[in-house]
Amino acid sequence: MASGEFPFIDMLRGIVKLPPGARDLRDDAAVLEIGDETLVLTHDVIVEGVHVLPDQDERDIAWKLVMANLSDLAAKGAEPVGVLVGHSISLDDARFAAGLTVALGAYGVDLFGGDTVCMPEGSARSWSMTAIGRACHTPVPSRAGACPGHDIYVTGPLGAAMMAFEELKADSRAEAKAYRRPEPRLYEGIDLAPHVSAMMDISDGLLLDAWRMGLASGASLSIDSASVPIAAPENRREDALSWGEDFELLLTAPKNADLPIPVTAIGEVIDGDAPLTLDGEPVFEPDGLGYSHGG
Amino acid sequence: MASGEFPFIDMLRGIVKLPPGARDLRDDAAVLEIGDETLVLTHDVIVEGVHVLPDQDERDIAWKLVMANLSDLAAKGAEPVGVLVGHSISLDDARFAAGLTVALGAYGVDLFGGDTVCMPEGSARSWSMTAIGRACHTPVPSRAGACPGHDIYVTGPLGAAMMAFEELKADSRAEAKAYRRPEPRLYEGIDLAPHVSAMMDISDGLLLDAWRMGLASGASLSIDSASVPIAAPENRREDALSWGEDFELLLTAPKNADLPIPVTAIGEVIDGDAPLTLDGEPVFEPDGLGYSHGG
Repeated sequence: MASGEFPFIDMLRGIVKLPPGARDLRDDAAVLEIGDETLVLTHDVIVEGVHVLPDQDERDIAWKLVMANLSDLAAKGAEPVGVLVGHSISLDDARFAAGLTVALGAYGVDLFGGDTVCMPEGSARSWSMTAIGRACHTPVPSRAGACPGHDIYVTGPLGAAMMAFEELKADSRAEAKAYRRPEPRLYEGIDLAPHVSAMMDISDGLLLDAWRMGLASGASLSIDSASVPIAAPENRREDALSWGEDFELLLTAPKNADLPIPVTAIGEVIDGDAPLTLDGEPVFEPDGLGYSHGG
Repeated sequence: MASGEFPFIDMLRGIVKLPPGARDLRDDAAVLEIGDETLVLTHDVIVEGVHVLPDQDERDIAWKLVMANLSDLAAKGAEPVGVLVGHSISLDDARFAAGLTVALGAYGVDLFGGDTVCMPEGSARSWSMTAIGRACHTPVPSRAGACPGHDIYVTGPLGAAMMAFEELKADSRAEAKAYRRPEPRLYEGIDLAPHVSAMMDISDGLLLDAWRMGLASGASLSIDSASVPIAAPENRREDALSWGEDFELLLTAPKNADLPIPVTAIGEVIDGDAPLTLDGEPVFEPDGLGYSHGG
């Protein structure tokens, strides 16, 4: 998500009649009740040179496309069922197909179909995916449920993708696993869903995503930056908190909730007009909180 | 669909384990049985300068994106439920949002969510959409059911989109409704589904799509070109048969089937190794049968 998308989504919100499951276009994923099942739907697009490096291995691109989508399902405590993929053809199609196969196989996800297109000469390519999951717990956790008095947690350290990205930029042969092959927290999301008041994945940086959760919830996420676990040197703490793509989960839960997996407390939800309160300072605007991918 | 996609899809077919509902990646849409419901899923991508003119009104682009997806649902006799959209941001976002609103409203389709991206400077943009429908008849009609002895039909005349495209190229203010605002045959598809042995939408030209139906069915679609209804001058008959985007339906049904709506018989399914037999001549290869969009 880039900040430029806000006016477009605001426009849509103003003119399209949205079903309740669209969650006002403010959540990681949508909810569709069909018969006696509850489906969770997400759609992500990644762009060459924006979300992945221009010369990045197509196997990594396919992997990241799958995992960005599965991470949205993880954030809603949903079990993946299948995906549809939109692919831009290139000379590296065999590598993309191989990466897609491995990524889907890793989580037992079915490929249902999709579309292929040729971009005009010289254009950056993009890839789209829709993932469909089955909710393991209803109501499906939302971004909008953070309540004053609840604690704020993350499932793991932040900054690993940032460090790996820098390693890969310096040496294109680097393993750089946290950037090239990130893993969504699917099992964690399913385990946590019954216990949380709000949950989302951290795809665009902790601070920006916490700001969004606060906005959606009408409360302020008060975060103590020193308590956030990081997977980077201490002098990179600030960067680690605004870099995305680690795909850890951000969640809130009532005080003293008995959570089923280890998570780290990083603050408390409070009353306040600023969606985020960082080390005691209210943050009203999202500008500069998140990292611009691939920059 | 461009012919360049075949090697990629063949590759996928060879290495990904596909669920039965993926229909071997040979159909307009996939089928997902969930609880006691049967969903129909489709994903289409349209590219600036390929499927739409580079300077085309963004309201038309949104309309075509919706209709290309709904047409796939029509071909499976499914009632649309909702869509997810991937949008490339531009200065014309307000027009895109307006077009999307009108298109979804025209068929009572819900917007569930999606994603927005910024393409790098100078790149062609693309738009993706997943449409989810509810099957009105099971088994869901497939491309693969054409049987020797069955009759072949189309739901309406072909060539209207071609004529409108040429009008629009000559005058960018032309109404050119058949190209700018095509309409999927949703009600026709729902009515026909219980009666057909095979059905698909004609998105890439009658001859290419008939060839694909023959290939999927392991039979030959024998078409009498003079019997095909066209919405173009007689001297453009050949072009009308290879131009796409009219979104009429191509179907086969047992001899003397009592079909619920008016359709035009254009030939008969026969035994044969060539997927298409055109005016008595077997056609083994698809090259040159379909029109390259926007060219």
